[in-house]
Amino acid sequence: MPLTNESFLRDFAQLSAIGATDRGGVERQAGTAADHETREWLAAWLTQRGFTIRFDGIGNQFGLFEHIPGAPYVLLGSHLDSQPKGGKFDGAYGVFAAAFAAARIAEMLASGELTAKHNVAVVNWFNEEGCRFTPSMMGSGVYTGKLNLDEALDTLDVAGVSVRESMNDVIARDGYAGPAVACYGEIHIEQGRLLERDGITIGLVDKTWGARKFLVTVHGEQSHTGATAMEDRQDALYGAAMMITAAREVVDNFTPGILHTAVSYLEVLPNSPVTVARETTFNMDLRSADETVLDEAIALLEKAAAEAETKARVRIELNLKHRWGLLAYQPEGVALAEAAANELGLSSRTIMTLAGHDSTNMKDVVPSIMLFVPSADGISHNEREHTSDEDCVAGLTLFTDVTRRLVAGELA
Amino acid sequence: MPLTNESFLRDFAQLSAIGATDRGGVERQAGTAADHETREWLAAWLTQRGFTIRFDGIGNQFGLFEHIPGAPYVLLGSHLDSQPKGGKFDGAYGVFAAAFAAARIAEMLASGELTAKHNVAVVNWFNEEGCRFTPSMMGSGVYTGKLNLDEALDTLDVAGVSVRESMNDVIARDGYAGPAVACYGEIHIEQGRLLERDGITIGLVDKTWGARKFLVTVHGEQSHTGATAMEDRQDALYGAAMMITAAREVVDNFTPGILHTAVSYLEVLPNSPVTVARETTFNMDLRSADETVLDEAIALLEKAAAEAETKARVRIELNLKHRWGLLAYQPEGVALAEAAANELGLSSRTIMTLAGHDSTNMKDVVPSIMLFVPSADGISHNEREHTSDEDCVAGLTLFTDVTRRLVAGELA
Repeated sequence: MPLTNESFLRDFAQLSAIGATDRGGVERQAGTAADHETREWLAAWLTQRGFTIRFDGIGNQFGLFEHIPGAPYVLLGSHLDSQPKGGKFDGAYGVFAAAFAAARIAEMLASGELTAKHNVAVVNWFNEEGCRFTPSMMGSGVYTGKLNLDEALDTLDVAGVSVRESMNDVIARDGYAGPAVACYGEIHIEQGRLLERDGITIGLVDKTWGARKFLVTVHGEQSHTGATAMEDRQDALYGAAMMITAAREVVDNFTPGILHTAVSYLEVLPNSPVTVARETTFNMDLRSADETVLDEAIALLEKAAAEAETKARVRIELNLKHRWGLLAYQPEGVALAEAAANELGLSSRTIMTLAGHDSTNMKDVVPSIMLFVPSADGISHNEREHTSDEDCVAGLTLFTDVTRRLVAGELA
Repeated sequence: MPLTNESFLRDFAQLSAIGATDRGGVERQAGTAADHETREWLAAWLTQRGFTIRFDGIGNQFGLFEHIPGAPYVLLGSHLDSQPKGGKFDGAYGVFAAAFAAARIAEMLASGELTAKHNVAVVNWFNEEGCRFTPSMMGSGVYTGKLNLDEALDTLDVAGVSVRESMNDVIARDGYAGPAVACYGEIHIEQGRLLERDGITIGLVDKTWGARKFLVTVHGEQSHTGATAMEDRQDALYGAAMMITAAREVVDNFTPGILHTAVSYLEVLPNSPVTVARETTFNMDLRSADETVLDEAIALLEKAAAEAETKARVRIELNLKHRWGLLAYQPEGVALAEAAANELGLSSRTIMTLAGHDSTNMKDVVPSIMLFVPSADGISHNEREHTSDEDCVAGLTLFTDVTRRLVAGELA
């Protein structure tokens, strides 16, 4: 089966049918049956094209093409897991573009058309999304030594199932340590509107926004929703509501667009319609292109928490659970990708990534190149997420050429 | 076994051991194993004292003592179900005081000490709490024709289990219609601070606060918590937070104490730490001694909803699901109980009930008497809920005497 653009789109549609939702999205949360099914699909696709499949301890799936025995790998990838009712492009486009580009390179190596300095491998990182198991970017976090393997394996979902228990036998039996990697490449949808607004096909990611992710707990007391005097209440949901509002409105203190905040997950105890909440727990997510802004926003939210404690007669704990800084991608990687885009006649611009990606972890340990293709209306983590066939193919074409250059050793 | 005050306290402690929590409360939500266990315990206790146990279609448990064949019953009762981590007095004190008072009356009838006009029966109403299955006061609601039996039986809990499925075989096989009732009596803990503040032992309930219970749904759109521009978000949790805050702060527009409001139950979809919420659903509970205040507060909350719709770019639906008016208890019942308290030397005052009770339903169909005993610090729906032995016994003494008068036909 020749590796044409048409077969790329056809096979990607087949992949998108796994865990498909009725509104055009996918639901394949990490470690679920649908997530395992995508692994099997990818394993079959890569095995047919001469790749060897291995799994490391956290369930990262590697497809290895070893052309030069013992040489390090150019590793390409992203993630096949999704949000609940998520889009079919987020992560999956990047994994399949990686597989397809790597397979094209493998053909060039086999035919002698390309002289390699490195081998080529594909990776499907475990649990990038972080919805079922927090934190996000778990597989690449463990691979890069930022997360402890055992702690990650012990992480529980809301039903009390651990990451370890969510692994299947194929993963559990392997115990591979992962390949030695020379450099890393990833392509992803933008999940924002900048490329679309500027009419540009390729984003050359040069920086990651900084992020601070808190888990907030509000401690109150149970009481009767009807009978208890208002001044006697210690309402943990009222305290949470004040903090959710404060977290959203803190952005009004800064230059528009410089700070993104969100609260999107909330648990209420006992969550009864007739009992005032004794405890609430929620995430609080801050991201900015400016670390000073993050610090200032956190100081304002700590003040808001103190006010909410008094007003709702509760105790509020802000626990910082995950953070990443404003680290740059290697400029020589950005330059290599820009040159490749120019030669192919593809419009490009540098861009920051607001979301975290597996490359956010990988760039801190090896030279990494991150590319974006446009997202229609910037919609993501939504079944309506969309990238045109034309943009998908343009991204694949560039990603293949970038991979060719990396395998040839152009990134010194 | 003689029906002494000591044996009342001892047996009540035995009942309180069913579903006991480690902090002195109970957890016996409607239709759970612990709830069924209390039914069996009560059935055994009453059967030993000559009562016949029957269940109607919604699972209300009746203990019947038919002294005069065919005569209507004085019905006494409350509920044995509890909130999650609830108190051991709320409902259960009333059911067991009813059983104990009825057993004392049954002894008087058997010995010829009392000449009866009515029979006497005890009831343990199904699902008064309304935490697992809404609405609250379900069993008495069906009995009084305010709720449709089939709709009540089809009500689902969050796990998708219906009321019908939560019933056990004993209940399902019976299919009793319930006794013909001449009048109703209930004793309950106050769940407020007024009796304690005034140093008074008995509350003579003359009115119920009005209540309006809404289910609110906020419709937004899923998006990425990090990447999506703030102005593009349609955040259903932000919309909910604004409404929760508004529902709490609306009370500041009114005379202190005249309005109680609460939001205590909230579901978030998809409830992922990395995806802005597409939908939230929560209860909104308003209670007042003044129906005009309820109407004004609702108008203010409708205005707040319109503002939240614009600010959070969401759509908000306020659905009124349950309401009750400011109906009085029969004054002749209040007078009868007051006279009995005076004769026994027990201090009493009239009091309104802020919470709904099964008597809230019963008083609309038969003459009903509702008594309160003090709650320490007004704490309820909490494991720390407490009423002293002395107050429990004083309430039992009065309730027994009120029952004697009712059975003798003093309430014409």
